[in-house]
Amino acid sequence: MSKKLTKRAEDYSKWYNELVVKADLAENSAVRGCMVIKPYGYAIWEKMQAELDRMFKETGHQNAYFPLFVPKSLFEAEEKNAEGFAKECAVVTHYRLQNDPDNPGKLRVDPEAKLEEELVVRPTSEAIIWNTYKGWIQSYRDLPLLINQWANVVRWEMRTRLFLRTAEFLWQEGHTAHATEAEAITEAELMNNVYSNFAENFMAIPVIKGLKTESERFAGAVETYCIEALMQDGKALQAGTSHFLGQNFAKAFDVKFTSKEGKQDYVWATSWGVSTRLMGALIMTHSDDHGLVLPPNLAPNQVVIVPIYKTDEQFDEVSEVANTIMSDLRARNISVKYDNRTTYRPGAKFAQHELQGVPLRIAIGPKDLENGTVELARRDTLTKEVVALDALTDVVEGLMTTIQDDLYKKAFDFRADHTTKVDTFEEFKDVLEKTGGFILAHWDGTNETEDKIKEITKATIRCIPEDSVEESGVCVFSGKPSNRRVLFAKAY
Amino acid sequence: MSKKLTKRAEDYSKWYNELVVKADLAENSAVRGCMVIKPYGYAIWEKMQAELDRMFKETGHQNAYFPLFVPKSLFEAEEKNAEGFAKECAVVTHYRLQNDPDNPGKLRVDPEAKLEEELVVRPTSEAIIWNTYKGWIQSYRDLPLLINQWANVVRWEMRTRLFLRTAEFLWQEGHTAHATEAEAITEAELMNNVYSNFAENFMAIPVIKGLKTESERFAGAVETYCIEALMQDGKALQAGTSHFLGQNFAKAFDVKFTSKEGKQDYVWATSWGVSTRLMGALIMTHSDDHGLVLPPNLAPNQVVIVPIYKTDEQFDEVSEVANTIMSDLRARNISVKYDNRTTYRPGAKFAQHELQGVPLRIAIGPKDLENGTVELARRDTLTKEVVALDALTDVVEGLMTTIQDDLYKKAFDFRADHTTKVDTFEEFKDVLEKTGGFILAHWDGTNETEDKIKEITKATIRCIPEDSVEESGVCVFSGKPSNRRVLFAKAY
Repeated sequence: MSKKLTKRAEDYSKWYNELVVKADLAENSAVRGCMVIKPYGYAIWEKMQAELDRMFKETGHQNAYFPLFVPKSLFEAEEKNAEGFAKECAVVTHYRLQNDPDNPGKLRVDPEAKLEEELVVRPTSEAIIWNTYKGWIQSYRDLPLLINQWANVVRWEMRTRLFLRTAEFLWQEGHTAHATEAEAITEAELMNNVYSNFAENFMAIPVIKGLKTESERFAGAVETYCIEALMQDGKALQAGTSHFLGQNFAKAFDVKFTSKEGKQDYVWATSWGVSTRLMGALIMTHSDDHGLVLPPNLAPNQVVIVPIYKTDEQFDEVSEVANTIMSDLRARNISVKYDNRTTYRPGAKFAQHELQGVPLRIAIGPKDLENGTVELARRDTLTKEVVALDALTDVVEGLMTTIQDDLYKKAFDFRADHTTKVDTFEEFKDVLEKTGGFILAHWDGTNETEDKIKEITKATIRCIPEDSVEESGVCVFSGKPSNRRVLFAKAY
Repeated sequence: MSKKLTKRAEDYSKWYNELVVKADLAENSAVRGCMVIKPYGYAIWEKMQAELDRMFKETGHQNAYFPLFVPKSLFEAEEKNAEGFAKECAVVTHYRLQNDPDNPGKLRVDPEAKLEEELVVRPTSEAIIWNTYKGWIQSYRDLPLLINQWANVVRWEMRTRLFLRTAEFLWQEGHTAHATEAEAITEAELMNNVYSNFAENFMAIPVIKGLKTESERFAGAVETYCIEALMQDGKALQAGTSHFLGQNFAKAFDVKFTSKEGKQDYVWATSWGVSTRLMGALIMTHSDDHGLVLPPNLAPNQVVIVPIYKTDEQFDEVSEVANTIMSDLRARNISVKYDNRTTYRPGAKFAQHELQGVPLRIAIGPKDLENGTVELARRDTLTKEVVALDALTDVVEGLMTTIQDDLYKKAFDFRADHTTKVDTFEEFKDVLEKTGGFILAHWDGTNETEDKIKEITKATIRCIPEDSVEESGVCVFSGKPSNRRVLFAKAY
């Protein structure tokens, strides 16, 4: 199998697809639109999960687990939510297969095992969860209810791409219940902040926080908060959303509580989620024509050591040094792997670890043993240096922070270079065509204009940025007055 | 809601169902046979997951993720496996709902969105995984392949019980591929040992390791290793299984490899799993008429501190001491919760923590402040003692080990008291009726006898114990010769 990647400038989309497969992150499966997440890809996802889970618990949330299936009658209870997901949901209609009398050795659905009520494979769990919350919430003492679930969900998308859009994906979904509107809004904002902190500080991906417009809102939400990242091809990627659901689900499922004062009211809700889509954001933010580039925080192995040797004796000597380095690095909580496979040559190992984005590579050969040095290579900059053995641990530890910071800075600078304020529609189209990226432009606030712009340019409003300042201007399309710029881009 | 439990001696089954719900572990959902795992129950499951995951990684396994759906044509490829699961599988036949023209506001399956090929919701993943492995394995260099998956699976069981038998459950499933038969058998045995270590040392549940008979084997396996535990009602519970699959799946999915010598052969396989059923084992091994009893290893909170006070000043003084205790305990990695809720009285808190099985409860009141003591209550023995504050951390730390060990010993002694060697079928029936438990008896090795015994007594062969000694005797039912005793019991 050729490990050579298509270059980004040649065909960005092909580069992405090849990279995902060749770096052993994921691959397509025998099931239309569903992926297999391979061990190396899953190890990165586990790192994301662990950090997010820690952040959720730190903010008072607990994990639970709700059923995979949603009975049709519950699914349709919140009308907008149902409408939003009905078009793309997998439906279980039978509970048994039987031998097919017409095809010996084959099975068929048993027509007698038809379910009385169809079950929808959850595309999201508001319905089944709010139906459950009805039994859990009676009084203000039961609130707030702060619950998260790690789960798989299914949305029958017609055009799928590994990690970015798959029929089944893994995610977490938080579902919270509150006594007041203000508290629910605060929660939705808090979790959007958790997501942006996670993206920026852990994944080294700068994001713009903001509010979705009505047409881009989650089906059933009153407001959708989001974080938007910019990929290297100038397209935006929605990396996480947090929804203020108002009392929509409480009303649909009749979830009321008695306040301290003895008054009955519907409960206020939020939901929020990030998914394996973050893997796509990670790949498309940092990687290059040589393969994956991983921030140290997300690397299953932060350092790999490759021995260079000709004789068994040399191998033993190198291994002894490697073992010392490993225990020194592990003592500082740096993960390190000694690639002592005898079935591959150093060149092949270098190529593999470069393709898989290991942040630092240490090579040790006989010459190094003589000099008391090693060769240290950085994946992000593709630079090498010779480092004295006795300084190595400190240097590596320092580089863990440096690389993490540099990757963020690089992505931040890229975004700054690809964010353009435009004031006319000609300019708008011109920027989109030439450089892509984020466009900050005035908009008149109507769905109609938003739709038209999308129709003509394929760009959508990614969000109304949280930090956008008041500024009077005129809508880039309709010329109507506007008092702040919103963020446009073509998006994944 | 009454927190009072039915007593075990009155109605064991009712006691179990009430305990699961009242201790906030799980509850039934709106979906037939599917449960909701509540935060407290899920926190215990997370502890199991973390420890098992650590053990799997320590033995060289990596996690990955495979699709939820299995296309029918793959599902039916390994005939015995298909036959075993076809009768109880959920089948997705459509991928869209639409507005129901006959029922405004309701949805129905869109008849035009019928899948060309039905998708089975995985009851187990051998088929989809071995179809994937075909692409991953070419040479001996790709072996062994040691992969685990944490996932949900669905088996459409007709009679369900929380944790013990549910239509959807959570589990891990390991799927490994090997170059030789011997290596695969060693792996299957190793993982059964991992399970028994986990059950005994982490969950404090003694288990019998052994081999299943042909009729109790996993559908598609050559041998099934298992661990069997004994519940307090004298019924057995299969707590984990590890299968040697021979070349069955490699042949069904045409997975061959080239050996070092250049020869082609089918790959050898294992699979192994434990599930949320372990929650049932945990509950039914240790708990009592007062509620859940948790071994310290599995307790989300190992210690709870309840303040006793009348005035705000007393509360502040007690809280100050509680805070010191908490930081001392946390410094020794003991998890502790300060139950300072003002909406509940101490009595209600005591009852709740007893019901939820918190291993140690510390109560602090004004009298304790004067004396420099606290009241320490053990959940497992329901005993209390007064402990000097300056000795508390050591005492608590010591009790963590003591309680863990005592629970194991208690369960071990119970099992010893409820394991009977019998030599006649009269005795066999008598023991089953009077005390239940494990029965060690000779068996002639035939399916026929096994079936007859099951038909008459409802007892099954739980396993042929690994440590059963050779001993000549005659089958308890047929009188035919036998050279070792096997383990019978009625089982969950």
